[in-house]
Amino acid sequence: MSAAHSPWFSREGMALLTDFYQLTMMAGHWKDGRIGQHVSFDYFFRALPQHGGYAVSAGLDDFLNYLEHLAFTKDDIDYLRSLKVFEEAFLDYLREFTPRCVVRAVPEGTLVFPHEPVIQIEGPILEVQLVETTLLNMVNYQTLIATKAARVCLAAGGDPVMEFGLRRAHGPDGGVSASRAAYIGGCTSTSNVLAGKIHDIPVAGTHAHSWVMSFTSELEAFRAFARLYPDRCVLLVDTYDTVKSGIPNAVKVFREMRDQGLSVRPAVRLDSGDLAKLSKICHTMMLQAGLEEPLIVASNDLNEDLIADLKRQGARINAWGVGTQLVTAYDAPALPGVYKLVALWQEGQWQPRMKVTSNFEKATDPGRKRLVRYYDADGQPLGDLLYLDSENWATSGTIEGRAQKHPHAVRRLENAASAMELLETVFKEGKRTGDVPRTKVIRERMLAHQNCMPEEYKRLRNPEIYKVLLSHRLGEMKDRMLINPEGTA
Amino acid sequence: MSAAHSPWFSREGMALLTDFYQLTMMAGHWKDGRIGQHVSFDYFFRALPQHGGYAVSAGLDDFLNYLEHLAFTKDDIDYLRSLKVFEEAFLDYLREFTPRCVVRAVPEGTLVFPHEPVIQIEGPILEVQLVETTLLNMVNYQTLIATKAARVCLAAGGDPVMEFGLRRAHGPDGGVSASRAAYIGGCTSTSNVLAGKIHDIPVAGTHAHSWVMSFTSELEAFRAFARLYPDRCVLLVDTYDTVKSGIPNAVKVFREMRDQGLSVRPAVRLDSGDLAKLSKICHTMMLQAGLEEPLIVASNDLNEDLIADLKRQGARINAWGVGTQLVTAYDAPALPGVYKLVALWQEGQWQPRMKVTSNFEKATDPGRKRLVRYYDADGQPLGDLLYLDSENWATSGTIEGRAQKHPHAVRRLENAASAMELLETVFKEGKRTGDVPRTKVIRERMLAHQNCMPEEYKRLRNPEIYKVLLSHRLGEMKDRMLINPEGTA
Repeated sequence: MSAAHSPWFSREGMALLTDFYQLTMMAGHWKDGRIGQHVSFDYFFRALPQHGGYAVSAGLDDFLNYLEHLAFTKDDIDYLRSLKVFEEAFLDYLREFTPRCVVRAVPEGTLVFPHEPVIQIEGPILEVQLVETTLLNMVNYQTLIATKAARVCLAAGGDPVMEFGLRRAHGPDGGVSASRAAYIGGCTSTSNVLAGKIHDIPVAGTHAHSWVMSFTSELEAFRAFARLYPDRCVLLVDTYDTVKSGIPNAVKVFREMRDQGLSVRPAVRLDSGDLAKLSKICHTMMLQAGLEEPLIVASNDLNEDLIADLKRQGARINAWGVGTQLVTAYDAPALPGVYKLVALWQEGQWQPRMKVTSNFEKATDPGRKRLVRYYDADGQPLGDLLYLDSENWATSGTIEGRAQKHPHAVRRLENAASAMELLETVFKEGKRTGDVPRTKVIRERMLAHQNCMPEEYKRLRNPEIYKVLLSHRLGEMKDRMLINPEGTA
Repeated sequence: MSAAHSPWFSREGMALLTDFYQLTMMAGHWKDGRIGQHVSFDYFFRALPQHGGYAVSAGLDDFLNYLEHLAFTKDDIDYLRSLKVFEEAFLDYLREFTPRCVVRAVPEGTLVFPHEPVIQIEGPILEVQLVETTLLNMVNYQTLIATKAARVCLAAGGDPVMEFGLRRAHGPDGGVSASRAAYIGGCTSTSNVLAGKIHDIPVAGTHAHSWVMSFTSELEAFRAFARLYPDRCVLLVDTYDTVKSGIPNAVKVFREMRDQGLSVRPAVRLDSGDLAKLSKICHTMMLQAGLEEPLIVASNDLNEDLIADLKRQGARINAWGVGTQLVTAYDAPALPGVYKLVALWQEGQWQPRMKVTSNFEKATDPGRKRLVRYYDADGQPLGDLLYLDSENWATSGTIEGRAQKHPHAVRRLENAASAMELLETVFKEGKRTGDVPRTKVIRERMLAHQNCMPEEYKRLRNPEIYKVLLSHRLGEMKDRMLINPEGTA
């Protein structure tokens, strides 16, 4: 089941999920007769999430759902009228509004990098402007979380990672979209049942301390749980005293199950204390009791650094529950992705535009662009090139371009064997161009991309910087426009 | 208009917004015949959000909406069946499920402190357990953001603060509930139109860089905006060069407006660069041009510390747009509120329960409790007391209790003149006990509470620690249960 078929919140009521200034600017363009003015906008981010070597694109599907259902209801119009800012004729225009834009985008689950146009939207300025806030809201957040999940799962080195974050996520949808993005980023399951239902993600869980506390003894609580769920019995051992009570009681129950002829994998969860030490004690106690290959799940405010550190300490943990730190991207909880005007249709052609400001780093790459990824003969990515839309580009050989931040720094991708354009047309004439992708397929795409990425880009700290180059023609246009920003190139 | 009357996402589809283990535990209690077992749970947090002296309670209204509509749809049941974990008879039970719990809570907008039972839920264990995750999801996040907003608004010292965060919030609902919580915490408006509609919050905004870039010159863009919105004309001056181009063009346009006989307040927004310096330059240039009392709005990744710092530097800023840092609570993006079993109905009476673990700090306060706030003769809060539900308590005089973390530390609230119980019954028999509160009224409650709070608790750094004491009887019960955690007191 996909979000498109099971809208758990009404996609119809979303037209007002935008900044107020988008509507006042729309009314301005409408009033001044720019209703037919076409523009081209790029979505991109200028820096990767904390410490990372790449980001995992996510959130596009929610945005396309929103676009497909984008309409102003009578209720919306009444509310806007009550603000006493808009003319009635503009409200009439909104009542008839349907999206006509064309969206090109990098598929979800693709690894992406700073300054790359991950999503491009072209169409009438009123509409392209309206959707900005919703696009940023959905794509910034899901990309942030998919990226965080990829880091957490890499640290876990192939162990299953369960996403447990709903209770600390930012609101109901913050929870549901976090679960989706975490799965795309490599998590194996979620505790969030609604996300499981909507996005077809495996759901998982153990039991809570309150289960134990609602019985007269921990042992009784464990026995009851084992009786009910012999096939999925993971016992939480830290309600009272992990070593003196929790583990011995769990061992007793798993032995009783075995004595009853049940073949179950002994499994416990540690949720507090010194996880490295406790996991080793637990592993030893279980082996000594003849319980082979125990599953030891750890949770308690984990993140990629703590998991890597527990691995270095030789912790006997082989499954991970990660919540708060993952679904909030705790160490840097926002991806500052932006959406900028790059071209204006004037006098029968696209005129590139550029935002300058005093901060050179914030200058945008002007014009409509292509994004091409080059691979070596083994299928490993060498780097990406941004070309002007109108340019011819080579598919192999040595590819030259210039660095983003240094106009005179020429860089080369040596011995490219193949190339792929990353942007695809995903929406036009008010509809998606393809089917709604299955979340699982997006996750597989992400894992495939990640697997062929060289190790140096995957380090948790100080990864190698992936090359994203400007073609010479794009670079030269940028230079000209920096000198004369208000004009066209 | 309130969330109850205008559900922008379907409250009907929310039953599965819970952790999977809640459902497996429910099935366990159901199977073992504990369907009639009544329990009492407390929601509380153990530590305040980053650097703060208090938290602002928020999120209850969303939770009560959820409770009022809590039902498992056919779709939900079909999905649960597909997991092949639950018996058909249990699914029948879910199909008939309606909430019967009683909820007592501190009203939204109240200042609250660590270890206080902000929300108490009593009822059948299956149900009280089911709602845990949703409660935590909604209340943790909104409390976090209302608290952050209170800090930001205190730093702004009475200047209007506009919440601009939708584009970096965690998903659509992360945005809508952030706007609500930010308003409760003291913000004066939001850019989020949907939140404005649903929660009756004033909406505000200026224009974007793209507005300027879509014209052939900045001056033309400013003139067009001034023509359209003479009454709400705030010009964004940093698209090209703030000092050389943006401010002079804005000055020219405001003078033109004045020459046309329009009486408008000159207003600009600075969104990059050295805000302290630029605001002073801007202020001087505007005054020199005869534009009196200019409104200078600042934005660009602001938070309470940066605002306080700009104030210290004498920045001529008199309105603030705050986004990312506010709606994500950037420096600590999760409130680790928890929900714990405190009593079990057994043999005709409430038996207190307690979670211990090896970490003494995490020991819960057992039993059903009352929360009483004491005030001095001027109406300033002196501190709060937690009493056992069955206890008599004094309403004035010198009130003695013991500190949370030190069993032997006796503390006194001297000369209490009045006292107020903070917990009210807000939900029973499947319904709210009162009307849906208006968001504006909640905001006023919060401001009233904050105004009567002594300054030392409102410092941005190292505030005084507010006293939350245990009554001697509660403290003694806790001691006894620490010795014998599995038993009752």
